Amino acid sequence: MTELLEQLTKGDRRALSRAITLIESTRADHRERAISLLSHLPPRQALRIGLSGTPGVGKSTFIEAFGTMLTEQGLRVAVLAVDPSSARSGGSILGDKTRMETLSRNPLAFIRPTPSNAQLGGVARRTRETIRLCEAAGYDVVLIETVGVGQSETLVAEMSDLFTLLLAPAGGDELQGVKRGIMEMADLILVNKADGDLLPTARRTVADYAGALRLLRKRAQDPEGFPKAKAVSAATGDGLKEAWAEMRALADWRREHGHFEANRAAQARHWFMAELRAGLLARLDEPDVRAELQRLGDEVAAGDVAPGVAAARMLDRLKGMSG
Amino acid sequence: MTELLEQLTKGDRRALSRAITLIESTRADHRERAISLLSHLPPRQALRIGLSGTPGVGKSTFIEAFGTMLTEQGLRVAVLAVDPSSARSGGSILGDKTRMETLSRNPLAFIRPTPSNAQLGGVARRTRETIRLCEAAGYDVVLIETVGVGQSETLVAEMSDLFTLLLAPAGGDELQGVKRGIMEMADLILVNKADGDLLPTARRTVADYAGALRLLRKRAQDPEGFPKAKAVSAATGDGLKEAWAEMRALADWRREHGHFEANRAAQARHWFMAELRAGLLARLDEPDVRAELQRLGDEVAAGDVAPGVAAARMLDRLKGMSG
Repeated sequence: MTELLEQLTKGDRRALSRAITLIESTRADHRERAISLLSHLPPRQALRIGLSGTPGVGKSTFIEAFGTMLTEQGLRVAVLAVDPSSARSGGSILGDKTRMETLSRNPLAFIRPTPSNAQLGGVARRTRETIRLCEAAGYDVVLIETVGVGQSETLVAEMSDLFTLLLAPAGGDELQGVKRGIMEMADLILVNKADGDLLPTARRTVADYAGALRLLRKRAQDPEGFPKAKAVSAATGDGLKEAWAEMRALADWRREHGHFEANRAAQARHWFMAELRAGLLARLDEPDVRAELQRLGDEVAAGDVAPGVAAARMLDRLKGMSG
Repeated sequence: MTELLEQLTKGDRRALSRAITLIESTRADHRERAISLLSHLPPRQALRIGLSGTPGVGKSTFIEAFGTMLTEQGLRVAVLAVDPSSARSGGSILGDKTRMETLSRNPLAFIRPTPSNAQLGGVARRTRETIRLCEAAGYDVVLIETVGVGQSETLVAEMSDLFTLLLAPAGGDELQGVKRGIMEMADLILVNKADGDLLPTARRTVADYAGALRLLRKRAQDPEGFPKAKAVSAATGDGLKEAWAEMRALADWRREHGHFEANRAAQARHWFMAELRAGLLARLDEPDVRAELQRLGDEVAAGDVAPGVAAARMLDRLKGMSG
C-alpha cells in the first residue's frame, strides 16, 4: 500500500491505474485498502472541469484537441468519463482509446473510461475518488466528461469546479433542445464546429445562447460576464486557447473571492451524505436481508401484513442482525 | 385499543377520527399502538379512487356532487386529501369543511384533510394507512384527492385502484398543459363544467383527450375502450352517474381478470420497501447521530477527510450506536 501510494504520488501511470482498479472494486478487503489509500493522499489540487455534450457535437474530437493543447502548455491532463449507458453495455474502453487516439498516446495525458458493472451511484463515487487519485498523481486538469442524459450531468456538475456545455451550431428553434436545468448549470457554453460553412451558424448560435444565459442566471459565484458562450473549432483549433483562458479566469476569480473552496466544501459535504445514505440502504442488498425481505414482501403482497407493520418489523430485525 | 378497534369496525366516525390521529402521530408509543391497530384490521375493501385536478377545474364542487350522488345510492364515502402544500401552510381543515359543505354534514360521508406538520413521504404513509382505517370502518368508496403537482399525483396513483384526472374545458392548444406522465396514469379523464356556454368546448376537449389517450397508452390492465375521456358537470350533475358506471365497469373487469388484486399486491410491496428505506434513513435524523454528522461533515468540508472515508467511518459508528 505504501509503495502504491509512493508510486502514485510520483505520477506513475501504472500505479494510478492500479489505484483506480482498487477503488472500483466492490470486494470488502479492496474497499478497506481503498479507504486507507484515500486517507493518505497528498492535498494536491487540479482544476476539475465538467464537460457535457450530446452525441454528434464532436465531444471526443474536442477533448482530443483541447487536451492536446493543454499538454502543449506542459499541463498534465486526465480525462474521466461518466457514462452510465456505456457502463450498462459493458464498458467502452476500446471506444475511449480509439476515439481519442492522439491524446491516449500522449505521456502527459491519462484517459480512463467508465468501468463496466457500475450503476449511476457507483459511477459517481468511483469518479469522485478517481479525481482525487489523479490530483494526487500530479495532474493539473481533470476533465470529467458525460453524455447528455439529465441525471449524469447533475452528478458531473456536483463534482466539478467548472461546468462546460459543448453544443453544435444550430438554428434558433433548436435552442430549446437543451434542458433549462442543464443550461443553468453551465459556466461556459462552447459552440463547436465553428469553421468552414458552419461558421456563420455557429456565430449566431453563440449569440442566441449568450442571450439565453443572461436571462437564466446571475449568481454570486459568477464574475461579470459569466456564464459565457464562445465559438470553438476542434477541427482547426480556433478558440481553444481562448476557452482555456476563460476557464482559468473564472477559476481564478472564484478562488480570489472564496467561492472556489466554498464550492468544494459544499460538494464534499453533499457526497458524504449521499454515500452515507447509500451505505445505509446497502444493508437491504445483503443476501440474508434479501431473503428475509422476499419472505416479508410476499406476506405484504398477500395482504397478511400491512406495509408499515412489515417495515417496522424488518427494521427491528435489522437492528438484531449483524450488518 | 380493543375498544377503539371495535368502535372503528362498527363504523363509528369519532373512533375513525381518533384512529387517524393515532396513525398521524410521530410519538414512538403512539406509533406502536398504531402498528398494533393496523395489524388487527378486518380485511374489508373499498374502491380506492385517486382524483387529481389543478385548482380552477372545480374539484371541490365535483367531489361534493359526486360524493353526494354516491351516498344517495346508499354508499359510504370517505374523502382524503394529499396536499403537501397545504401541509406546509399548516393544514386546510377549515378549507376542506367549507369547500364541501353538504358532503361534510352527510352522515354517510367522511372528510379528512391533509394533516399539518407533514412532509410528502409522511403524507403518503398517513394516507395509505387512513385508507385502510376507512376500509375497516366500512366505507365503500375512498376518494383520494390531490392537487396537480407532479410528485403527489404519482403517490396517489400508487395507492389507488383507479386514477381519475379532472380537467376544465379548454382549447386544443392547452392540451399540452397536462404533463404526459400524469396523462399516462389516468384511467379516466373527466372534463368538468360541461354545461351552459362551455358545453361545446367541453365536448371538443373530451374528443381531444380521447384521441390523445388512445395514442398514449395500451396496457394489459385496461379493457377495450380504456383509458376513457368523459364530460361531466358538477353543477348540473350531468354525467356523474355515467362516470361512476365507468369506474365500476373498469374495477369489475380488473377484478375478473386478476389485475385488481395483482395491482394492490404490487402497491403493498412498493410501500413496504419505501417505508423500510425511509426507516433506515431516519437513523440520520436522530439527535446523537446528527451531532456526529455535523462534526464529521465539518471535517469533510475542510478537506481533512475524504467523503467516502467519512461515510465508511460513520457507518461503522452507527453499528455501534443503539438505534
